[in-house]
Amino acid sequence: MRVVVTGAGGFVGRSLLLRLADEGHQVVALDHIAPGAHGGDVLVGDLTDPGIIARALAGGCDAVVHLATMPGGAAEVDPIGARRINIDATIALSEAAAAAGAEPRFVFASSIAVLGSPLPPVVDDDTPLRPQLVYGAHKAMIEQWLATLSRRGAVDAVSIRLPGIVARPPGPSGMKSAFMSEVFHALRAGVPFTSPIAADATMWLMSIDTVVNAFLHALTLEAPLPDSRAITLPALQVRMDELIAAIARQTGADTSRVAYAPDRDLQAAFGAYPPLSSPTAEALGFAHDGSTAALVTSAIATIEKQESAQ
Amino acid sequence: MRVVVTGAGGFVGRSLLLRLADEGHQVVALDHIAPGAHGGDVLVGDLTDPGIIARALAGGCDAVVHLATMPGGAAEVDPIGARRINIDATIALSEAAAAAGAEPRFVFASSIAVLGSPLPPVVDDDTPLRPQLVYGAHKAMIEQWLATLSRRGAVDAVSIRLPGIVARPPGPSGMKSAFMSEVFHALRAGVPFTSPIAADATMWLMSIDTVVNAFLHALTLEAPLPDSRAITLPALQVRMDELIAAIARQTGADTSRVAYAPDRDLQAAFGAYPPLSSPTAEALGFAHDGSTAALVTSAIATIEKQESAQ
Repeated sequence: MRVVVTGAGGFVGRSLLLRLADEGHQVVALDHIAPGAHGGDVLVGDLTDPGIIARALAGGCDAVVHLATMPGGAAEVDPIGARRINIDATIALSEAAAAAGAEPRFVFASSIAVLGSPLPPVVDDDTPLRPQLVYGAHKAMIEQWLATLSRRGAVDAVSIRLPGIVARPPGPSGMKSAFMSEVFHALRAGVPFTSPIAADATMWLMSIDTVVNAFLHALTLEAPLPDSRAITLPALQVRMDELIAAIARQTGADTSRVAYAPDRDLQAAFGAYPPLSSPTAEALGFAHDGSTAALVTSAIATIEKQESAQ
Repeated sequence: MRVVVTGAGGFVGRSLLLRLADEGHQVVALDHIAPGAHGGDVLVGDLTDPGIIARALAGGCDAVVHLATMPGGAAEVDPIGARRINIDATIALSEAAAAAGAEPRFVFASSIAVLGSPLPPVVDDDTPLRPQLVYGAHKAMIEQWLATLSRRGAVDAVSIRLPGIVARPPGPSGMKSAFMSEVFHALRAGVPFTSPIAADATMWLMSIDTVVNAFLHALTLEAPLPDSRAITLPALQVRMDELIAAIARQTGADTSRVAYAPDRDLQAAFGAYPPLSSPTAEALGFAHDGSTAALVTSAIATIEKQESAQ
């Protein structure tokens, strides 16, 4: 399968490229930063440049995985710049994919940010979308666009709504949810960590390996999809103190240097996730990590692999 | 109230400007074609030019009425050009309005095209959006965007979903639904008319006077609005043969030169509207024309007024 991957140089992108190569797919990797070695074609350029989209699709495509985005924190600061990537470039890419392939699968990295806040006592597949962030609004708008293109037979879209992903590498990401990964790095390094959400705050989390599994599954999924083409992935509901305890158990870390200083906005945006019911995704074969312990094991294994590769 | 009106040179815009002036509002009229005399400020330019938006809002604003759009037929031919007006310029306008006013009312001309087709046996306020046209997808996306901006307290949006509007002036409009107005002009002129939808096809219609009333009402409405900020306006469900009979009764026209040659796509898009239940709009004080006879009377009165003004 010839797969064009945008945002290929990002955290999810690099992990996905390796798995796509392992499974024998022909990959065209596109990003403004080089994604590193993965055995496929690499195009380095700006997705807002129609020329780069044309080059990526010049050889046709069976599928697109569209990861490129301006994330939540950055989009709040620069909403018009975010629109150019999250809306304009995404629409241009979808139109180009429709022209380059025969109803190609278009896997879109949507986000639970489409749900907004405050959330109802339980979130399920019928929960209305009430995004609060520019980023969440953009994701909801593109879900609508891709559902329309799918009804028209132009592309065969699957929008998967990603929960918090752990553990991203250290360093700036433009993501407001960066603390979910920083807690892993701080505890492993034995440095102080101050949680910007309360001990009993609840997140929806998925390990990067499980996220990559979801993308691979979405690429080849043949079961009938909902008309919205949008799927809230199953995610583990995890309390912050339980996450910290699980990391400490598996790393032998000392939790005495962990403090809690909840930030009202971050707590509302990332620490108030109720129980999640995602029957559509489960019926289609998507799964979460199974348990907080398994999530932490998976996340730490990824961190160790990255460290040994450096 | 200082009101910025985009698409002011269009059919709805020109009618709205006159009423706004009558009611003593200060109007800034913006379009790429001059809207004619109406007593307010006029800016002629392209809405995709950020400079023209800045000039329109330079004096602040209490409200925006955003009519400018690339309509259905034209957007199908040029989806990327349509995106620049229907999405990009609209988002830029909403951001500029948020910066120029204190949570200004933003009245958005949405469309029943957001509902798509085929429709369920009855459409109500809970009917999910399944747009089929690029135009309908764009309108649905902007509804989502404006609901988000309203939740954020940036603007105070009302998206009103317009049904078919009669009777637009003769001539090209870029609208696939142009036949709904052409039937008035053909019968009055005594020339042959071939309906592109069947005799028993059902449309949702509103006269231009009633549409203008809806915009004026949306401008000042203070009742609590739905979280979606989107309101399907009440519309009359009218059969094509009943519309033709009502026009003939009121104009003395001969219907022997009327023929029916249904076009599958037009019939699906404009001739298959089921009964409409719009309790949200009605509770907020919006109303339809009352009866097919009243709708036709109103539409013909507008045509006669336009003719006498020429």
